[in-house]
Amino acid sequence: MNEILEGNERIDDLEYKGLKIIQNPDMFCFGTDAVILSWFTTLKKWDKVVDFCTGTGIIPILLSGKDTAKYITGIEIQPYMAQMALRSVKLNGLDETISIINGDIMHADDIIKESVDVVTVNPPYEKANSGIEPKEDCHSVARFEKKCTLFGIIDNAAKILKPKGRLYMIHRSARLSEVFVILNKAGIEAKRLQFVQSREGKAPSHFLVEGVKGASAGIIVKPNLTVYKEDGEYTDTLKQIYHLI
Amino acid sequence: MNEILEGNERIDDLEYKGLKIIQNPDMFCFGTDAVILSWFTTLKKWDKVVDFCTGTGIIPILLSGKDTAKYITGIEIQPYMAQMALRSVKLNGLDETISIINGDIMHADDIIKESVDVVTVNPPYEKANSGIEPKEDCHSVARFEKKCTLFGIIDNAAKILKPKGRLYMIHRSARLSEVFVILNKAGIEAKRLQFVQSREGKAPSHFLVEGVKGASAGIIVKPNLTVYKEDGEYTDTLKQIYHLI
Repeated sequence: MNEILEGNERIDDLEYKGLKIIQNPDMFCFGTDAVILSWFTTLKKWDKVVDFCTGTGIIPILLSGKDTAKYITGIEIQPYMAQMALRSVKLNGLDETISIINGDIMHADDIIKESVDVVTVNPPYEKANSGIEPKEDCHSVARFEKKCTLFGIIDNAAKILKPKGRLYMIHRSARLSEVFVILNKAGIEAKRLQFVQSREGKAPSHFLVEGVKGASAGIIVKPNLTVYKEDGEYTDTLKQIYHLI
Repeated sequence: MNEILEGNERIDDLEYKGLKIIQNPDMFCFGTDAVILSWFTTLKKWDKVVDFCTGTGIIPILLSGKDTAKYITGIEIQPYMAQMALRSVKLNGLDETISIINGDIMHADDIIKESVDVVTVNPPYEKANSGIEPKEDCHSVARFEKKCTLFGIIDNAAKILKPKGRLYMIHRSARLSEVFVILNKAGIEAKRLQFVQSREGKAPSHFLVEGVKGASAGIIVKPNLTVYKEDGEYTDTLKQIYHLI
């Protein structure tokens, strides 16, 4: 098995349909956000799916477990992350379903040559030049909008989506109004919203949104998703999302 | 006391600083929404305040209890409601703080001749011609956008607000993205958001938003406000809002 690993990489078991993923603790590892976004994403039979900012490839790999997509293409700008994600795809024997492209989502329509049904994205949460920023490395590219902007992400998603195609995104609550305004400018209507709160009664830190290209106004706001119980254990919903129960 | 009442009107005690209100059960009576919006509204010393769609005058009367506004002007399009609200103002001896104008908020800048610090609005929730509509009467004007539109409300608020002036609004969750998009078009940035849910774990039915004219992007999302406990009693927060504890 070790010939597929480089440097400090390790193989993590996703505890879901036997899926595994290669991660490098020196680089950006996936978090709960990616797992929750995959759960929130509704796939229909034969959907063509593109995942922006795919990183480790966690979202394409988790989405493959839904067994409905025709294909899932992950786009990642950092060459090392893209080739590590590709090795994870091969490790899972998912080469026929998932492809990983080392490319720039700010030019997604140059990369993806046909309209797709679904775009997913777990984007960098922070604006570039906002607060203390680490030097430009794998972490900072994943956390700060150094290589992309919120507008660019949504606008490029709109460009490659079919009419009525769906965009699934997770973001920080602080950026909710920006996301809604940009979705509207890009011709995508926010249709389903769910906040994520660490505990019952706490302020929601993140939100999940489903946007539909060319849809009419009107949104369904779901009950907040609570991550932890009072005792610090995962809630039953989170355990279900992680396939622990 | 009875000379100030007409027809089926009654006087309700607001159980707060001795404030009372005249209501007519044949017409539109105020609901929890107005009380929650008044609670959510932050007033600073000497703020000049305008309440759109003031109806019974409930919001100006509750806001007067905060003892900080320089003046509060309620605008109501329906002549009978406006004169009933005015009688409530007199009943409370609030003539010096609150004025009620029978006018059209769609021309607010013709009515309000100076820039103000705060606009509050508990607007009609439903679009005109959406679903089954009652005939045009007091109820339908309060519930449907017959005499105003969401864009008109927000645009007129923006016209009369000072730079950094604040708009406080409650609306149905279903219209969240519309509100955010229109706020942005009108130059008002959504800065604070709080959802209202009937019970813990339920989908939020309404939201409260504070917008600031000319502010930069970035919003604080507060913990959801829960109305009822599992046993059907008001939560402690709601009891505090209603000044019951």
